[in-house]
Amino acid sequence: VTSPDPIASLVAGVLERRPRAVARAISAVEDGGEPQREVVRRIYDRTGRARVVGITGPPGAGKSTLVDRLARLFRSRGETVGILAVDPTSPFTGGALLGDRIRMQALYTDPGVFIRSMATRGAMGGLAPATRDAADVLDAAGFDWVLIETVGVGQDEVDVVRSADTVVLVTLPGLGDDIQAIKAGIMEIADVFVINKADREGVERTARELKLAMELDEAGRGWVPPILKTVASIGRGVEEVAEAVTRHRAHLEASGELAERRRAQLRLRVETILQRRVLSAADRRLGLEREVERAAAQRLDPYTVADAVFAGVTNLGKQAEVLP
Amino acid sequence: VTSPDPIASLVAGVLERRPRAVARAISAVEDGGEPQREVVRRIYDRTGRARVVGITGPPGAGKSTLVDRLARLFRSRGETVGILAVDPTSPFTGGALLGDRIRMQALYTDPGVFIRSMATRGAMGGLAPATRDAADVLDAAGFDWVLIETVGVGQDEVDVVRSADTVVLVTLPGLGDDIQAIKAGIMEIADVFVINKADREGVERTARELKLAMELDEAGRGWVPPILKTVASIGRGVEEVAEAVTRHRAHLEASGELAERRRAQLRLRVETILQRRVLSAADRRLGLEREVERAAAQRLDPYTVADAVFAGVTNLGKQAEVLP
Repeated sequence: VTSPDPIASLVAGVLERRPRAVARAISAVEDGGEPQREVVRRIYDRTGRARVVGITGPPGAGKSTLVDRLARLFRSRGETVGILAVDPTSPFTGGALLGDRIRMQALYTDPGVFIRSMATRGAMGGLAPATRDAADVLDAAGFDWVLIETVGVGQDEVDVVRSADTVVLVTLPGLGDDIQAIKAGIMEIADVFVINKADREGVERTARELKLAMELDEAGRGWVPPILKTVASIGRGVEEVAEAVTRHRAHLEASGELAERRRAQLRLRVETILQRRVLSAADRRLGLEREVERAAAQRLDPYTVADAVFAGVTNLGKQAEVLP
Repeated sequence: VTSPDPIASLVAGVLERRPRAVARAISAVEDGGEPQREVVRRIYDRTGRARVVGITGPPGAGKSTLVDRLARLFRSRGETVGILAVDPTSPFTGGALLGDRIRMQALYTDPGVFIRSMATRGAMGGLAPATRDAADVLDAAGFDWVLIETVGVGQDEVDVVRSADTVVLVTLPGLGDDIQAIKAGIMEIADVFVINKADREGVERTARELKLAMELDEAGRGWVPPILKTVASIGRGVEEVAEAVTRHRAHLEASGELAERRRAQLRLRVETILQRRVLSAADRRLGLEREVERAAAQRLDPYTVADAVFAGVTNLGKQAEVLP
């Protein structure tokens, strides 16, 4: 028998932390459209309790290993952990990361851990919005920790980690300028720096470089991001990472910054939804493609076209073509 | 004496390819707002003639050197060249790239070459829109070639190179999986592959890997992207790159794909302007920040907030607060 309100039974399952319901709710937010909105609407007042941590850094830095070690540590304390492994670069690494994760999931027969891969191709409404909504699902399901792991590249990624209360940037000894450049944009929003594989040469130099870059960027922020050294593969330094994340959370609460960050997160989410909404309204109400074809044929400039389309979208009564 | 219509005299200067007018028009599109729109509106019917080439790839691949060599080659044929060096990763490389460019500019006392750096911090309306508009300025100024050079990382970059008719991806021998991952998203839109520093070891292997990746992605595209080997520092292979770009342009014209790409470019530009417009309307008409604060205090979910804001934006007559 199917429920008369499938979303209601899905949400009920999420709130009881039933793994299949959690998985299906995340699929719903990936699929986009009305189910995505409805799931979030109905669980939202049950969110806000989980500690949401973004773990980012270049490929090969050992993020997955660190996440795995952190999860085991939290479990050993009786805390529950939801993990979102975000992989926007599917053509090359998608399969590999997903494969890693499937192997990793197999390690956990533990219902206190939930692991999910998120990929661009699965997220119809955009990767960052789907990831934020999935974090809400895990939060509403009562997981104490939500760990969002993502490769630190580009704007999509920055948007993803902005969903986190605490951002951990994982790097390696001896990464040159090339990789530093890639991390720009992430650097500014990192709350904790981790130099993983710290048994390798160059760790002190990398620490100095990070410290220098930080001093340039982070003056007067009230929280001085610690620079930690780990060898995640053997568990070294992992407790210190957990401790730094916990300290950062306490700082956010004590300083009032937690409320401020969450307001900024809400604004970012609202803005993203608005941006998608205006495009879908332009498509649905006006047929954006047809308007663009007419504009291209007439060699109209993009600002004139956008003005006409925006006027058409905001003028609900009028369904006619907007361009001459 | 100042003109009664400063934009008109600016546009007149652009159309005569006066370097100061070109520079000021690009500053205007970077500054955003009404001057950005007005400049583009007034020059747009003079655009569409330049061959616009995007040159992208990881830091250190030698893009600047290749661009420099291409510019000299085109000049030796009597063709004029505008160069936009796009640098979204300002905290780490911004200064360096800009410094390189200033040194490079000094090499050219030649009025047939115009070089401009574009950085995120300068572009109030977003880097990709400003770069597209700057390319229009150079196009309207009558430059035969517009070369847009950009580091191949992330969505911003992909948006930038989508402004080009032809995309050249510059890579290096022996780049591992890490860099391959970064290029995902760019890979699919490359029309010409260049392996620079081809005197280094590993060039054949990199060529094979590119070929393989291409065969997976590019089946049935009508144009098979050539894989070229260059040593740009000594000019080797640069003529072949110019020839491939010219062949690609001929293919675009013969196949009708040029019109199709330009329609897609127009659509992307219109969408970007619409997305900015809805946010500025939400800010101006409703005070988005205040609405978000109220929503956060009430713990409203982002979809409900976005619905209310979108309704407020599209309901021009109503200026009241949109949330209870």
